[in-house]
Amino acid sequence: MKSKFTDDSLTLHTDLYQINMAESYWADGLHNRKSVFEVYFRKMPFGNGYAIFAGLDRVLDYLKNFRFSESDITYLKEEVGYSDDFIDYLKGVRFTGSVYSVVEGEVVFSNEPLIRIEAPLAEAQLVETAILNIVNFQTLIATKASRIKQIIKDEIAMEFGTRRAQEMDAAIWGARAAIIGGFDSTSNVRAGKLFDIPVAGTHAHALVQTFKNDYDAFHSYARRHKDCVFLVDTYDTLKSGVPTAIRVAKELGDKINFIGIRLDSGDISFLSKEARRMLDEAGFPNAKIVVSNDLDEYTILNLKSQGAKVDSWGIGTKLITAYDQPALGAVYKMVSIENEHGEMEDTIKISANAEKVTTPGLKKVYRIINRDNGKAEGDYIALADERPEAEERIKMFHPIHTFISKFVTNFEARELHRKVIEDGNVIYESPSVLDMQKYATSTLDLLWDEYKRSLNPEEYPVDLSQKCWDNKMSNIQEVRDMVEEIRRR
Amino acid sequence: MKSKFTDDSLTLHTDLYQINMAESYWADGLHNRKSVFEVYFRKMPFGNGYAIFAGLDRVLDYLKNFRFSESDITYLKEEVGYSDDFIDYLKGVRFTGSVYSVVEGEVVFSNEPLIRIEAPLAEAQLVETAILNIVNFQTLIATKASRIKQIIKDEIAMEFGTRRAQEMDAAIWGARAAIIGGFDSTSNVRAGKLFDIPVAGTHAHALVQTFKNDYDAFHSYARRHKDCVFLVDTYDTLKSGVPTAIRVAKELGDKINFIGIRLDSGDISFLSKEARRMLDEAGFPNAKIVVSNDLDEYTILNLKSQGAKVDSWGIGTKLITAYDQPALGAVYKMVSIENEHGEMEDTIKISANAEKVTTPGLKKVYRIINRDNGKAEGDYIALADERPEAEERIKMFHPIHTFISKFVTNFEARELHRKVIEDGNVIYESPSVLDMQKYATSTLDLLWDEYKRSLNPEEYPVDLSQKCWDNKMSNIQEVRDMVEEIRRR
Repeated sequence: MKSKFTDDSLTLHTDLYQINMAESYWADGLHNRKSVFEVYFRKMPFGNGYAIFAGLDRVLDYLKNFRFSESDITYLKEEVGYSDDFIDYLKGVRFTGSVYSVVEGEVVFSNEPLIRIEAPLAEAQLVETAILNIVNFQTLIATKASRIKQIIKDEIAMEFGTRRAQEMDAAIWGARAAIIGGFDSTSNVRAGKLFDIPVAGTHAHALVQTFKNDYDAFHSYARRHKDCVFLVDTYDTLKSGVPTAIRVAKELGDKINFIGIRLDSGDISFLSKEARRMLDEAGFPNAKIVVSNDLDEYTILNLKSQGAKVDSWGIGTKLITAYDQPALGAVYKMVSIENEHGEMEDTIKISANAEKVTTPGLKKVYRIINRDNGKAEGDYIALADERPEAEERIKMFHPIHTFISKFVTNFEARELHRKVIEDGNVIYESPSVLDMQKYATSTLDLLWDEYKRSLNPEEYPVDLSQKCWDNKMSNIQEVRDMVEEIRRR
Repeated sequence: MKSKFTDDSLTLHTDLYQINMAESYWADGLHNRKSVFEVYFRKMPFGNGYAIFAGLDRVLDYLKNFRFSESDITYLKEEVGYSDDFIDYLKGVRFTGSVYSVVEGEVVFSNEPLIRIEAPLAEAQLVETAILNIVNFQTLIATKASRIKQIIKDEIAMEFGTRRAQEMDAAIWGARAAIIGGFDSTSNVRAGKLFDIPVAGTHAHALVQTFKNDYDAFHSYARRHKDCVFLVDTYDTLKSGVPTAIRVAKELGDKINFIGIRLDSGDISFLSKEARRMLDEAGFPNAKIVVSNDLDEYTILNLKSQGAKVDSWGIGTKLITAYDQPALGAVYKMVSIENEHGEMEDTIKISANAEKVTTPGLKKVYRIINRDNGKAEGDYIALADERPEAEERIKMFHPIHTFISKFVTNFEARELHRKVIEDGNVIYESPSVLDMQKYATSTLDLLWDEYKRSLNPEEYPVDLSQKCWDNKMSNIQEVRDMVEEIRRR
């Protein structure tokens, strides 16, 4: 980047077509029309039964600071070629809308709105790309981390992925998302500082190579570090690494806190059991075995089923890139727009694929919690003027397979969204990242275990209210009529 | 991030263990020992026959600005707990080493050094993580882009992936890497500004939803934009979108430059052929058909084989995340270190897996070009004191399957690395990104087509010189002897 611009701004971090559209709105005098957009994804990532929402804090920061910098304006004018009058509009544009969002750490599902933006049309359009960029990645990683943590359970989970992350932002925001999803620490020191999250790490092979043998390297490390985890696989794990770690631990006794060893290659199931036996026999039954090396939830499940003796898991590539599904497909769709009479009108996007047809209208999402057992019955999407919390009984039915339905009574309807920005002002203060993690854990407790299975989980119901459904159907009919009219022309 | 720190620095963007190791080196007085590290990857990404190197400019910028900021130092001292004496060292640390690298756009292969760092040990260690983070991602995306471009050939390739990128850095640096790999443009305006690369885009579904029909939306867009590509799938591609685009184009005639239409859903093979027919019949044989929707090289190859009528391809998710292999596994390995007598000694890392055993020693990489036909015979890794360019004949043999060998005569041995940093000073100025693209295209011309096939390409030879091989074998033997000695203790 060569620091060519000292005022690099995220406001320009958008797709060109957003600015083109803003220009058309502005030229037609529509740019300040009230509009409502929703952020949601259509398919659960990794085939998981739930997702963990993350990214809100960054979104708030982005919207708060939304303004084109001087060099942005110069670029748009001189390089892209927008005309002076529209450039004048862009110079003054700020985000003045209101935003409703689920909080970070919230358990969320496909096809329910995560964020709702109510803003002047051109502003809502300009912020789409960055919001999706942020939410898609951070939610993806928080979900992957939670999924891995379900398998790791009470053992230690450490995020080690920086070197394989997709550039620097992914490393630090991914580390933060991993903590939200249940991880204990990250190796990335910058993430530790920026987000006040725990950092962890000991030493790498280069230390051992410097000394040309495990013995001198471990001693060197121990001279300066009280807490010692020795990496034992530089030359030969069982013949050199583990016996040398034991020897050094014995020699130094109480002078160090011999936490344990780390295995970073070879067959972890076999090596961890052998190392465990050697440590136990040497009188170190409390020494921990830390492992790393291309791990993910599938490998860990397999290692555990083979009785691998592991106390602490370092997860890199497969977590930080969400290797088996590296993108979440959240979209940003207009559901309502002000008409020329100042009234809000619902909008829809049609598709030959049923899942891709949008659900029109300003909506709210409720988590329906059964008061008898404290468990969630499903999420319920209603039009904004409905009040499911005041109902005795609600009917929930599948929004694609509508014949699947159930009645729920004796429930609490807990609204999922909070107002986080009001008329451009951020009114929500994020809790600490560790508190987000606690919140995620507590909301996961609302779910039956069937939804938390890593393979083939039961599908959690996310249903539309009857009014919401009827509204969608009438919008589809209107579009059909409109298309028919076009054909007849 | 809440702008809690105004002096966020990338110097802290490292794994904690690097700082721990630096501390041990420093405490033992080894931190200024000369060391040599190499960056390389072990396996070709996507099973491709070659990779395109990218990331150097960012690496240079990072190394040039390497210094812990005030808040970094405070964090390391107060939160991580390093002691005052070591903190004093960290306060003053800069990158004072020398760096040799292949240039961006260079065609590279697995198991050959891409970057060589010659630096004081502690410095070389501290910069490892960030360098890998940068090079792994940018090289991955440049390679993916080149792979896709091989299939797209002379049609237009546009990078559309920002919303699905793994956070913001991935979006912009990925866009830049895509251009290096052969793409024509990106949708990301910030990337356009920062890297001086072409941006492209027209409008999205929201514009059409705002007007509730294609006709008014296209007219609105055309009022303000001379060049028009109309998105035709908001409601019904063939019944509404395409006929309306044609109608508006006819109505406006010369008032606009009707470039064409964009398809973003449905069966692209069928729809593009139908749309082509409708456009041709309506008298717009030059109107272009732009397509997007989860495309990658496999889909494009299939669409082309079915005769899809596409002029321009917008590639998002699958490119910007390198969806089918979202991480390149480049590593950073020590190959040589100064001993207590001031002499350089080779180092090795052993593994049960032959590919994971490092190749010790300070080495150079040569591209061996056959003067008879101008094509590359392979890459040749030699120890630094060898001079293959002065040889009449060289023997090239496979570094794992050593019985595979050939003799080459009448060749040019072109050294791949340039010195880019000398004693901490950046002495290399990167060309423009578009020039990097041109360079990539020209170096690809050195390769036979067999290496450029997207599926099952021929393996390009990356071979060791005899001296380099012998040196590796003797290093392995030394380690074996050392391990045996440990066992006997």
